[in-house]
Amino acid sequence: MPHQVNELLLELFVIFVWTKFFGEVFEQLRMPAVLGEILAGVVLGPYATGLIQPSETLRSIAQIGAIFLLFTVGLETHPKELIRVGNKALQVAIAGIVVPFALGFGYMLLRHEPAHQATFVAAAMVATSVGITARIMHDMNVMNTRAARIIMGAAVFDDIGGMILLAVVVALAAAGPVDYLQIGIVIAEAVGFALFMLFIAPRVLRRVEPELERLQSRNSQLILALAICLGLSVAAERIGLAAIIGAFFAGMVFAEFAGQWKLQPRVNAINEFLAPFFFFSMGAQLNPQVFTGDLWKTAIVVSLLAIVSKVVGCGLPLLKEGRMTALQVGIGMTPRGEVGLIVALIGLQMKMISDSAYAVVIFMTAATTLFAPPVLQYLFTAEARTRPRPPGYLPERRAAKAQDAEAPPSLSPVE
Amino acid sequence: MPHQVNELLLELFVIFVWTKFFGEVFEQLRMPAVLGEILAGVVLGPYATGLIQPSETLRSIAQIGAIFLLFTVGLETHPKELIRVGNKALQVAIAGIVVPFALGFGYMLLRHEPAHQATFVAAAMVATSVGITARIMHDMNVMNTRAARIIMGAAVFDDIGGMILLAVVVALAAAGPVDYLQIGIVIAEAVGFALFMLFIAPRVLRRVEPELERLQSRNSQLILALAICLGLSVAAERIGLAAIIGAFFAGMVFAEFAGQWKLQPRVNAINEFLAPFFFFSMGAQLNPQVFTGDLWKTAIVVSLLAIVSKVVGCGLPLLKEGRMTALQVGIGMTPRGEVGLIVALIGLQMKMISDSAYAVVIFMTAATTLFAPPVLQYLFTAEARTRPRPPGYLPERRAAKAQDAEAPPSLSPVE
Repeated sequence: MPHQVNELLLELFVIFVWTKFFGEVFEQLRMPAVLGEILAGVVLGPYATGLIQPSETLRSIAQIGAIFLLFTVGLETHPKELIRVGNKALQVAIAGIVVPFALGFGYMLLRHEPAHQATFVAAAMVATSVGITARIMHDMNVMNTRAARIIMGAAVFDDIGGMILLAVVVALAAAGPVDYLQIGIVIAEAVGFALFMLFIAPRVLRRVEPELERLQSRNSQLILALAICLGLSVAAERIGLAAIIGAFFAGMVFAEFAGQWKLQPRVNAINEFLAPFFFFSMGAQLNPQVFTGDLWKTAIVVSLLAIVSKVVGCGLPLLKEGRMTALQVGIGMTPRGEVGLIVALIGLQMKMISDSAYAVVIFMTAATTLFAPPVLQYLFTAEARTRPRPPGYLPERRAAKAQDAEAPPSLSPVE
Repeated sequence: MPHQVNELLLELFVIFVWTKFFGEVFEQLRMPAVLGEILAGVVLGPYATGLIQPSETLRSIAQIGAIFLLFTVGLETHPKELIRVGNKALQVAIAGIVVPFALGFGYMLLRHEPAHQATFVAAAMVATSVGITARIMHDMNVMNTRAARIIMGAAVFDDIGGMILLAVVVALAAAGPVDYLQIGIVIAEAVGFALFMLFIAPRVLRRVEPELERLQSRNSQLILALAICLGLSVAAERIGLAAIIGAFFAGMVFAEFAGQWKLQPRVNAINEFLAPFFFFSMGAQLNPQVFTGDLWKTAIVVSLLAIVSKVVGCGLPLLKEGRMTALQVGIGMTPRGEVGLIVALIGLQMKMISDSAYAVVIFMTAATTLFAPPVLQYLFTAEARTRPRPPGYLPERRAAKAQDAEAPPSLSPVE
């Protein structure tokens, strides 16, 4: 033991502290911690200073980190929230998937990029990271507005849709663009997997739950959740999806019990330990030297498309409810986060996208994440001044909260 | 990602479920879960069925698991408890370190085992795993008896002493038996490390604590604890100690804040995920075929010595307080657990002990862990019948609790 772990432990320690330090600095600067953590990886990684060459074990730990990250995202995805907002949220989500994908894909093809690369970049533009938006709306005490409820509902669909899309993209990449049968099978599998997780798995879990009482092991609920998370990750991979898709749906199945079983703080603790290694190695794989004049242009255009496509796509179905609500929802759905990043990373690891395209996706994620919060704050503050009060609305409280929110909002899409 | 993690994820899933299953079965049979988890590794490991050949990454994860395990042990080691029982507990602890070590070392030398092997086996006989005892005393509602308080206090010394002893043993192994200077340096380092952690580090932490409020990162307290745990593990290794020694002392520094910062449930969650891999790979390194007639004899003698040495060593300083108290403390200090196992594992990995000696230590750990609980229950129940009541004593309640304790006690030294 003393000799074998030596270098690994040092590597883990340096990366953990360095990454958390960058995260903290970014939060102090009122920027999302995730961006800081990725930058930490860029700085120490092999392409910039080269001080750390990630070891095989580190890469494995980073990948387990990605699984727990998506498990946590799943834990926060309550399928029941869909029913509350229902139809409208579904329209918003579908438009918010289709429009960004179409615009991204079209632009990449126009630029004569290969189709598989265009597919991955476009897929990375799809999934909303609702963590940042939820945080701002929570801080501003507007979570009970219609816009907020639509955002939260649509984000659930969005995540599920994004996962299915990822499955399809991975299948496309693996099968080559001609094998329609193979692609059809994967789409069917992904949709079947999602439907099973949405409708059948929670019932099974509700039946199993009372039986857990009989177990002698402490933390049996946490252990069950971890086992299912690992098991569905393996299962998803075996049927040709990505492991994180299984982890995401595993989280969703447990979302209903997350509060009662106190899963969230405990899974978050595991995440808190593992996620920095994931974000660091994500940054370590970014080559900052690819940013030439031309790539800057692409990165900026893709970022603009990412913003416009969500605002238009998600806003359109809501135009009847007023421009303000449409705009709030559109901007609220703009930030991209971990799901998009993982799509790009998978593409990079499957050698389906180039270093440049990977860099574009990370730039786009950073741009959307930095753009949305101030605009969203402005929109909700502006509305509070002009609109008649909704029932149960307390102007003083909201105003006070809005001021709070202008203080460091400590944004982080990962929780 | 889809291809790289493939085998690793499957390996993690199978090991996690299999190990937890064995742990649960053992708990249902009223035996410590840890023994079941180790057996799980023996069964699937390369020496028995050979179904799993632990990968390099799995070994690394197991070693990180060992670090978090010792961090948790440290978190439960409150140096302040020492002061309460003070001198008597110190005598008990010292005798409980010296006597088992001397008997174990002597017996191994008598058997013509090489000195370094005798040292490791004897060192593995030292550290008490107080978790099992604490659990029983807690279930029987006797935690406020003098015997219980002495046990808890002595166990703190015992852990610290065991860690220093491990440091010395590792140094002996690394330096060879002649380099007294080198050994002297390591002893000084280990003692210095322990004293620093006991007296200076908690003060530093108390100073730093209010500053944590200024940080924007969520879970900043947990992050600090994890960073220090990794950092001290690296530091301990760098000065020639074992990484787990650093982790243990890191835990001890945070013990004071564990409640207030809610560290325990969160570090436990990380532990719950990582520890099964550690216990599994500990079992996977046990070759059951070494148990020939002669080794059975050795294993049984070492186990008897382990029991007798603690009962005599820990009991002697207490003879003035009555035979019952002396016996309760002696038996209460008998179970060996994760620290002894790790000592043996380090010995195995440093090639300082043979497969046979490793097997003997695991047998001894199992024997002491299975022996102590029923005897301890008998002693406390017998005492409850014969002795005048201590203040605040409720006979009905204690009797009811004692019956409860005869129901599945779900023992586990790891928490």
